[in-house]
Order: sequence, then structure tokens, then C-alpha cells
Amino acid sequence: MSDKIFRVNMTTLTTCVEEVPANWAGHGGRGLTSTIVTAEVPPTCHPLGPNNKLIIAPGLLSGTPAANSGRLSFGGKSPLTGTIKESNAGGTAAQLMARCGCKALILEGRPAGNTWYSLAVSPKGVTINVETELIGKGNFEVVSTVTGRIAKKHALISIGQTGEMRMAAANISVKDSEGHLRSAGRGGLGAVMGSKRVKFITIDPQDGKVAIADPEKFKAANKIFTKALTSHPISQGLGQYGTNVLVNIINEAGGLPTKNFTAGQFAGHDKISGETMYDRIMERGGKPKHGCHPGCVIQCSQIYNDLKGQYKTSGFEYESIWAMGADCCVDNLDHIAEADSLMDDLGLDSIETSVAMGVAMEGGLLEFGDGEGILRILKEEVAKGTGLGRIIGGGAGLVGKTFGVARVPVVKNQAIPAYDPRAIKGIGITYATSTMGADHTMGYAIATNILKVGGSVDPLAKEGQVELSRNLQIATAAIDSTGMCLFIAFAALDDATCLPALIDLINARFGINLTGDDVVNLGKYILKTERAFNEAAGFTRTDDRLPEFFEYEPLAPHNMVWDFTGEEIDSFWDF
Amino acid sequence: MSDKIFRVNMTTLTTCVEEVPANWAGHGGRGLTSTIVTAEVPPTCHPLGPNNKLIIAPGLLSGTPAANSGRLSFGGKSPLTGTIKESNAGGTAAQLMARCGCKALILEGRPAGNTWYSLAVSPKGVTINVETELIGKGNFEVVSTVTGRIAKKHALISIGQTGEMRMAAANISVKDSEGHLRSAGRGGLGAVMGSKRVKFITIDPQDGKVAIADPEKFKAANKIFTKALTSHPISQGLGQYGTNVLVNIINEAGGLPTKNFTAGQFAGHDKISGETMYDRIMERGGKPKHGCHPGCVIQCSQIYNDLKGQYKTSGFEYESIWAMGADCCVDNLDHIAEADSLMDDLGLDSIETSVAMGVAMEGGLLEFGDGEGILRILKEEVAKGTGLGRIIGGGAGLVGKTFGVARVPVVKNQAIPAYDPRAIKGIGITYATSTMGADHTMGYAIATNILKVGGSVDPLAKEGQVELSRNLQIATAAIDSTGMCLFIAFAALDDATCLPALIDLINARFGINLTGDDVVNLGKYILKTERAFNEAAGFTRTDDRLPEFFEYEPLAPHNMVWDFTGEEIDSFWDF
Repeated sequence: MSDKIFRVNMTTLTTCVEEVPANWAGHGGRGLTSTIVTAEVPPTCHPLGPNNKLIIAPGLLSGTPAANSGRLSFGGKSPLTGTIKESNAGGTAAQLMARCGCKALILEGRPAGNTWYSLAVSPKGVTINVETELIGKGNFEVVSTVTGRIAKKHALISIGQTGEMRMAAANISVKDSEGHLRSAGRGGLGAVMGSKRVKFITIDPQDGKVAIADPEKFKAANKIFTKALTSHPISQGLGQYGTNVLVNIINEAGGLPTKNFTAGQFAGHDKISGETMYDRIMERGGKPKHGCHPGCVIQCSQIYNDLKGQYKTSGFEYESIWAMGADCCVDNLDHIAEADSLMDDLGLDSIETSVAMGVAMEGGLLEFGDGEGILRILKEEVAKGTGLGRIIGGGAGLVGKTFGVARVPVVKNQAIPAYDPRAIKGIGITYATSTMGADHTMGYAIATNILKVGGSVDPLAKEGQVELSRNLQIATAAIDSTGMCLFIAFAALDDATCLPALIDLINARFGINLTGDDVVNLGKYILKTERAFNEAAGFTRTDDRLPEFFEYEPLAPHNMVWDFTGEEIDSFWDF
Repeated sequence: MSDKIFRVNMTTLTTCVEEVPANWAGHGGRGLTSTIVTAEVPPTCHPLGPNNKLIIAPGLLSGTPAANSGRLSFGGKSPLTGTIKESNAGGTAAQLMARCGCKALILEGRPAGNTWYSLAVSPKGVTINVETELIGKGNFEVVSTVTGRIAKKHALISIGQTGEMRMAAANISVKDSEGHLRSAGRGGLGAVMGSKRVKFITIDPQDGKVAIADPEKFKAANKIFTKALTSHPISQGLGQYGTNVLVNIINEAGGLPTKNFTAGQFAGHDKISGETMYDRIMERGGKPKHGCHPGCVIQCSQIYNDLKGQYKTSGFEYESIWAMGADCCVDNLDHIAEADSLMDDLGLDSIETSVAMGVAMEGGLLEFGDGEGILRILKEEVAKGTGLGRIIGGGAGLVGKTFGVARVPVVKNQAIPAYDPRAIKGIGITYATSTMGADHTMGYAIATNILKVGGSVDPLAKEGQVELSRNLQIATAAIDSTGMCLFIAFAALDDATCLPALIDLINARFGINLTGDDVVNLGKYILKTERAFNEAAGFTRTDDRLPEFFEYEPLAPHNMVWDFTGEEIDSFWDF
């Protein structure tokens, strides 16, 4: 079965299955979503209007037995940033979509009335069904109800109430193999799905594997690749403490944004650290290791139980814990876990929403540190779509505008995550130049600035940061096209066997002969394609800048400001 | 006494009086505010941060006996649009500032603490005083309390609660000679004043007149100028029905945006028309004619009383009545008058706020037509700064983002006023290209498209609209520099004696020899200066576009869409 494009028109409520255009054939994941968005979405369209599209694409290796290849890319024009957007997540949908022969699902148009729908994807194509029961419900109820209706092994993609309400911080959730949720968090694509009035999408379980052109070569490459991943010390640390291992590390580096980015260290860091979290997980019978998708060998996720030993949340990431923790000065890990669970259920990006809370605290909505206040607002305001709830669900930039706050940590209106660019300058270049708005995953300079992976670049100095971010962003764009988890990058940067094995996997899958240069060129093509979309949407180099306050407010303890000139930042694009 | 620059630094709480730099000397009003903003405000600064400035400048003829010369310009970077902004108002402040020898007041910096201040302007300069009593109070109480504290004939510039809360639709009010308010409405400069923690500014009454180089020539020119103004039929219509004479005219033309811009005619138009308003004013003992500043000979303002014959509002303009009326489908003129009064007290732009209500109605907040609901939201939500109140006070674009609505009538995030660009295409070119965001006053093509002033250009055809808007925008920029009311333009367009008399007034005031070409060049200089600021702030030609829905939703009754190409719009700037 050769891969096809599955297209759903929500204006006419029709679907079709199309051949893959020749110039899309070599793409998957982010490379494919960005190629399709550029080809079919008018850059100046309204993100929630009929002319935006939601593209869902598995990676090039999704559906194969390759380790860590289960990420699913979502693309479109972002209602949060106005830029092109790709956001990806684990779960089981990428693998099942690939096994259904669906290279990409294109969701276009917009229904005229108030009816809601669900979509069902199978190897034959897509069917559109009217949905009533689950409208107004959270993701958890969608999972349990849909699992009750159909085979448990289906994959499920859904939005919570915030996506229905088209809030700009709404994410898209993907069910994992244990029935928990993984999120394509950033950029508000849940609101785009909501604007098309699609509550959820199911994908038929498939036993058939995707075709592999050279199975022996594939198997051999996968063995080398898996070994490279599992033997890297960072992979091992992630397996024990999860990404939250970073709280103490980044606090020590003085780059843990605290109290809405007014300090670089948080007095309560130890109470929310990965080490504390690990102890609590063990005490309460949780699981410190857990994969977000079948085939993951790093297992950075975990099962965090509450005081009674009942499941509370998983995929409890450093960036979410930082945002609700240090940035809002909340040092109660159980409050943070409860908020994480609520945001998963509501379908909200936990970074955007929590940074929004920090800005609202500065605007006087709550006292810093008021974890119970945050929980109350999520439950009583956001879930119910009150005015205040819609402000918080609109993201940090919108909170800043609404509360008249000038210290608003966003780039291209997307909240800056867990690493202060004044103290870790490489990540600042990524925030400024990323085609997606501020996003640490687009070029994770923390690796080399702090973790000393792929060499070492002094986080406090300007030297080498632009080049570091450039190389990382190019590599990331390519990795995001494979369906691979970004955490393969640590091994890829340090272990000479890793990247060649990844390329061999792709070559063996398709019977082609990509070289390392081809992969670099793919990354460059993706970045330039995305940037061209943004330019046509009206973005200029003045959008590739950090917020002004980073330039005039020094950050303790290093007392550094953000001191890159515009020209230095713009040199990022010299490739 | 020669004019000086009065400068107030709110970071250091110091003031000074400075000589006028040579290249500012020939400017006044908008020409001066835009020149100073360009010289001193970093284009990419945060509008509510310490690096934005609020500039207040009388016009070149303010303080003289020239008819209609009492407009005061406010300038800065707009928190609503992110562009440069000039907004002007009547009242008595322009004349008194000029008589104090203040060519411009520059308000810069931002206090660190939570203290509020007032400023007092006299010929000696500015003093800064701590203010406590009036914080949290509306404009009406500011007027009455300040008038009780000091001489009744002082001028007063103030912000309401919404300016204190830094809402992006907050305006700046100027007291008129009867103690009512005039508003520099558009673009949220009230929030900039609020960010500097200045609640109000008083200006000492002055008996001394400004110096006039050639009094005889001035007097003669003023006589011709006044006759041209008073004899024009539009001036006379404005004196009887106010600007609200337009409801029936624009409805007849099919360009009265109704129900959040989904139709071009409003069934209830007759109930809110200028004719109906005139009858009601006469029945209730109001005044159909009233000048917004001493020396006005057109008198388009009025006193609108309530059912009991008590004063309710003045300066009750067509655009406000349209916005709360047709756009929100409210056909009760008393509800609209009450809302107008509330917005004046709160310090809100009545166009921005009312269009925001229309978008919120589309988002499901209220039913269209629910005038009482609007009043309740203004009183219970906006005045108290609740989440919902802050959304409405954030303007139409923010409401669209918060409620996930795609039909949002804004350009550069500023609400489109009372003339649908699909049915009156000339004004659409002004909305698209204005350096200020959508603003009918920047190039009032209605004059020639509908009122047949200055010739006639078919409102439904594309031909001639770009040239019309260009000529009007250039002339308007020059007029906005003189301190003159924009309504002199009707006479200036039709009466050959008017413009030469205006130029003679300026020449006689300063002892100079400007020509008509000089005035045109001044207008061009202002537009280009403003556009350069916007470009440096990151605006591009993609921002010079109307919202997408105008292109795909035909407007009844003419069933026209907005069909200008980008290239056609951009040709506006070919001068």
C-alpha cells in the first residue's frame, strides 16, 4: 500500500484520498506539514477562518520498528503567533496513521452551522460523523468514552473545552498506549481544530506494518541507533528523573526564570526538583520511567501519583513544572501536578498557560505563590470560558495586553519557556529567530550551553551562540521530519554512530541513498520554507527580537542583560 | 514669550523647560507629536514600558482667535496598534497650553512604585503632585473635584479608570468650557498616560494672548476663513443634526455596518438617526448646537438630555451611535446615550469599545440588540476591571482573539468605524493605508464618495479611490498640525477662499510666507515620517490590508466584496 493524502473539507463535509504530489513525497512530519501549509494556506489568512488548514502528518519513520519514531506533527497557521506552526507529540496516532497509509491528513474549510463532528481514519480514508455527547467535555472523558465505544487499540486525537472555545493556548492531545495523553502543546493548533468543529479523530488499529524496502539493513541500523540512544548519559538521566532533572541544574546556572522573569533562581527549587519528584513517585507507587509512545527506549515520562497513591499525571515535564513552579513562585509539587492534570484535561499548553498566570500575577490577579488560586482559576474560570478564563487561555501575550503589563516574556506572542536568555544566551538566539515563536525545542542550546553535549559554549558569553543555535535549529527541523523524538539529539551530538544509523534507517525504509548533507539540506529547506511563509504573513526581522525588558532589566545572580544587536541576531539567517 | 518644550520625567520625577530645537519650530499638533515621537521613542519599545513617551501639543494656530483652532494633539506609540499614534480633541486645553508658552509637553519614563501623580502646567513649567483622592475615579468626578480645588477656568486633561488599568481602548479626556468632556479617543493613549501614573493634568488659565506677528492680516484672514466655514451647507447640517445626520445617509448608501459587519443596512436606523435625535433634544430641553471648544463656528456638538430633562451626554457622535447602534443592533437611543456617558466617564474610546461589543456579541457574550446588557457590562465589568471588563476595554481585536471570532473588523488592530469599505471603497483605502490603523478621520473619503464634497467619486467603483484617499490623507495631516478641527475640510474642498485664508492665518501668526505647496509638503512629510516609524516598528505592506472576511463575504444590499489588490493599495504610497 503506497501512502496517500487524506483530505477532509469541513465546509462541504466531504473527504477524499489523493495521490501524493511528487514534491511532497520525500517529506514527513514537520517537513511535510510546513510544505503543505506553504503550498495551500494563504499566509495572511485569519487562523480561525475558513482558509487556514490543519495538517497532521506522521514522520518518515513512523509506523516502523525504529526506536523513538512515534511522534506526530501538527501544522497550520498559528492563532497564537500568526506564524506557520508545527507542534508534535507522542502517543500511538503517528504509528497507526502511517500503517493506515496516511502520509498526511489535511483538514480544511469550516462548517457554517453549530454542529460538531468527529473523524474516523482507516486505510480506506476518512469518515465524518456528527458528535454531540462529548461536546463541552474534557480530554479525559473523550478518551474514556471513545474507548468504550470502539476498539481500545484505536488511536485518538482530541481537543478539550479550550480548543472548542478556540483559545489561543489550546493544544491537541494524542492518546498514548496506556490511555493517558500526550500533547502537541504549542501555538494554539487546538483552536484551529476547534474552528473546524472537529472534536476528535480516531485512527483504526492496524496490524499491518509499513513497507520497508531493505528489512535487513533497517534492522541492523536500528540496533546501532538504539544502542547509541540508550548508552548516552543524558538518556539515562532522563529515564530516572525525567526532564525535571533540569530544575536544580538550571537554578544552579542562574537561568531559572522566577517570579515572572524577575530573577534567575528560585528559593523553592528543591521542593519541585526532579530528585524530589523521583522520591515522591517511589513513595507513592508511581513509575519513574514510562514511554510516551511504543518503541521509545529513553522513557523520560513517568506516572506521578497523588497522596493517596492514585494516578494524577504523566508527561510531567520540566518546562511545565518550572512555569507553574518557579515562574509563579509555587513550591508545592502536588499543586503543580494537579494543575498539569487540569490543563491536560482542558487541552491547554501548560507552558503558555502557566507563563500567562505569571504575567497575570504581576498584573495583580493573584499573589505570587498562590497555587490554590491557580487551580481555582483553571477550574472555575478557564473550564467555564468566563472572561478571565478566556484571558488566561489566550496566552501570556494576551494577559499582558489585558492587564497592561509591560514585562511580558513572549516572542512572536508565544511564551518563553524555562530558560532565561540573559543567563543562557544560546537559547535566546533560538527564541528570537525560531520560525515558531519562542520555543526551546526548536534549537535546544541548553545542550551545549549547560549540559555540555556536543561540546561546550559559555552560556554567559555571546561568542558562538548564533552558530550553535543555527546548527541546532537545522538539525532539529530535520529530526522533526523523521517522527523521531527530539531527545535522540543528545546521542546524535556526542556519538558518531548515531546519525549515520538514523540516515541508514531512512534509506532502508524507502530504498534511497540520502547522505548527511542531504539531511542538513532538508533542515535548511524547512527553516527557509517556514520563514518565507512568515515573511509573506508580514513578519520582519523586528519580530526576531526578545522583549525589550530583557535589555534593561539585569537578571540576578549574574546581573546580565540581553545584549545581542539586531545585526548579530539576523546573522542567524546567513546560510 | 517664545514657545518652549515642557518635559516631565516620571522615572526621576523631575521637570524642565527647554528651548525648541530648530527642526521642531515649524511644527504643531500632529506634525509636532509625530516628529517628537520619531525623534525620541524607540519604534520597537513596549508601549507601556519606560521608553514610550506621551506628547501633548497644541496646533500652530491654537491660542489665537482663529475660528475652530482649539484642537489638542496627543501622540506616542499606541498600545492598541503598536504604530505611531496621534489623536486629537477639543476642549480648552490647547488654547491654554499655547497661552502658557508650551509648544509641547513631553511625558517620559515611568515611576517605580505604586504612587499616582497629577501635573500642573503654568507659564513657568510643570509641577508634579502626588494624587490619592481621585485614583480609581471616573472622569466626571475628576472634573468636579479638580474644579472645586482650583480655578474653574483651568483646563483639564484626564484619564478614567480604564486608563489607570491600562486598557488599550482607554482614551484621554479634555474638559470643555462647560465642564463636559471631549476625547482624544483612538489608539489607547489613555493607557500610556496611565502607565506613567499620571491621573490628570491641569493648565493654568491665562488671559494673555499668543503673539501674532501681523494682527491686521490675521484679522482679515480670519474673517474670510470664518465666512467660508459658516456658509458651507455641510457645516450648517452639522450644526443642526450633529454628525449623526449620517445615520440615514449611510444607511441609504448601503454602507452602514450592521450586526458586526454582516449587513450594510440597519432596520432600526430611523430610531437612532440625527433627525430623531434632534427631535428628542428639542422635546427634552437640550441643545442641538454646541461647540467643543471656544471659537468653534460649526458647533456640531449638542446637549442630549434624558427622559427627565437632565443632562446625559454631549459630543454624541455618529460613529459612536452607529457602533453601539447598528453594529450591535441596538435601536434605543437612550441606551446608546447612557453607554456614551458611561464610556466618557470610564475614559473609553466609544468606537473601539462598541465595535468590541459587536464582536463579543458574535462570540456569544450577549444577544445582538441587548442594550441593557451592554450597559451592565460597562458598569459591572469594565468599571471594575474584571476579566471580561478588561477584554472589552482591550478593544475589538482583543475580543476577537479571546472569543475565537474570525470576523473581526480591525486594521492594525484598531476597530473599523462606521462606514463599510465594501460599499464605500474610498474609505477602505484610508483604513488600509492609514499610519494609525483604521480611522475615518485620517482621510475622510465619505466627503467625496457620499456627500459629493470636493467633487464626486462613485463609492462602489475602484476608480479614483486611491488618489482620493491620498489627497485627503495628505491634507488631513496638514490640518491636524494647525489645531484646526477636521470639519474645516468641507469648506476647504469646495470654497476657493478657505485654504488661502487658512494659510494667511498661519503666515500672519508667525510672520512667515508659506505657500499652498508648503502645506501639501508638510502633509506628505508627516505621513512619511509616521510610516517610517511604523516600518521601523516592524510594520509592512501586509499590515496595510483589510481583514480577510471583507474579501469573501459580500455585503448586502450591494453584494459587493472588497476587491482591491495589494498592489493597488500599495500605490497609495507613490508620492
